[in-house]
Amino acid sequence: MKIYDRPGFPNPARIRIVLAEKGLDSQIEFVPIDLIGAEHKSHAFLQKNPSGVLPVLELDDGTFISESTAITEYLDHLDGHPTLTGTTPKQRGLIHMMQRRAEAELIDPVGEYFHHATPGLGAKLQAFKSLDWSGRADWGRRQGERARAGMIYFNGVLERQPYVAGDAFSMPDITVFAGLMFAEAAGLTIPDNSAALAAWRTRVADLPSVKNRSGQAFLADDARRLGL
Amino acid sequence: MKIYDRPGFPNPARIRIVLAEKGLDSQIEFVPIDLIGAEHKSHAFLQKNPSGVLPVLELDDGTFISESTAITEYLDHLDGHPTLTGTTPKQRGLIHMMQRRAEAELIDPVGEYFHHATPGLGAKLQAFKSLDWSGRADWGRRQGERARAGMIYFNGVLERQPYVAGDAFSMPDITVFAGLMFAEAAGLTIPDNSAALAAWRTRVADLPSVKNRSGQAFLADDARRLGL
Ligand SMILES: N[C@@H](CCC(=O)N[C@@H](CS)C(=O)NCC(=O)O)C(=O)O
Ligand SMILES: N[C@@H](CCC(=O)N[C@@H](CS)C(=O)NCC(=O)O)C(=O)O
Repeated sequence: MKIYDRPGFPNPARIRIVLAEKGLDSQIEFVPIDLIGAEHKSHAFLQKNPSGVLPVLELDDGTFISESTAITEYLDHLDGHPTLTGTTPKQRGLIHMMQRRAEAELIDPVGEYFHHATPGLGAKLQAFKSLDWSGRADWGRRQGERARAGMIYFNGVLERQPYVAGDAFSMPDITVFAGLMFAEAAGLTIPDNSAALAAWRTRVADLPSVKNRSGQAFLADDARRLGL
Repeated sequence: MKIYDRPGFPNPARIRIVLAEKGLDSQIEFVPIDLIGAEHKSHAFLQKNPSGVLPVLELDDGTFISESTAITEYLDHLDGHPTLTGTTPKQRGLIHMMQRRAEAELIDPVGEYFHHATPGLGAKLQAFKSLDWSGRADWGRRQGERARAGMIYFNGVLERQPYVAGDAFSMPDITVFAGLMFAEAAGLTIPDNSAALAAWRTRVADLPSVKNRSGQAFLADDARRLGL
């Protein structure tokens, strides 16, 4: 299997954590894609994923699977023992509900904030983001507020239960974790009084699949190009 | 089990089709929620689904599951024989990839177009939609264009294979079908030269779970209130 991604970016990080959780790292060939250079908007890459985003999984038979939820479903079921997407119908339902919320209320709005209300990944990529849309920065800032409301929502969830979808670590924990990592990089802080979210974050950061994972930080070259 | 929904609306229709596919209709008590009256934004309803949208499933133990993807995962696995969400890892991956695309590139943008670029569900609900955001109608229209691009994308997919995620009818077919139904109601037409999409739509409309389903049309009272 191949994964097209870029170390240091939040959605790729979701799948790197899944791979570590499932012990699959060694079976993957990683192919780096230059996001800052807009390689993911090239014709060649859009053949792999018409949505033009990372990560993308390529199976040995040439099938491409994009969308982190879908890649996680694939990888989690490979060994016949899903540990991240639930086993009972109720677990599956709750995990997918929280996964959708973690995307719609946190990691996706952070991305929109980053690309529309800040310089994002720089000039080359902005050419694909701006078009001629006047309300763009205003909308980007609204997405930032939305992401902050999402953090407050997840803090409330984590006041009632140890993990995002219940008693066990699962797919949406990874999504919320990556969402917070992205928020920090984009300059969106966690609201005060989010003690449960902060405590959960410390616990998750300490899991072996998260802690020992290589490539959490931006590649040195990318950080330099972004002026970080 | 209870389902909070409203006959005639597109996301509720997704789950009504799932119920018919799985032969579960008779096990459900349907509780109608008045969308035009903004009942789904009331404190009582937000306790059931903080995202304030329909449908919502309530299990007999009092658990609430919202998000159509999550409700489908739950219902499809109840009898231990999933028919809509795949059985192999590859099927699961492709189905969730196409499901995400069907939401992100079609049914969700149609909803944003409907609520932001048209009068949507009327004055009472618009109070929850508008806030003080200047670029709103512009953004709504962009979402309409996005939905039309989504239709062109799915037409291309259906030129290559009989159903949205491959050879068999599955969850994302339902989502695309409901998305087209919503687009039509919102005044967004299918682009010309979408022969594969149109032919697929005719075939899906003819499936027993789609055809014999009651409640596809708006409730007479809702249609009157919307001036339809
Ligand atoms: N819904 C996608 C989101 C993927 C995504 O937005 N990836 C980012 C990298 S963190 C990306 O490729 N951004 C490039 C762009 O927006 O142009 C998923 O679940 O994988
Ligand atoms: N992502 C949700 C979307 C649900 C949704 O948008 N439902 C519509 C009815 S078709 C709704 O409740 N709209 C009310 C609103 O936007 O205020 C799902 O998958 O169920």
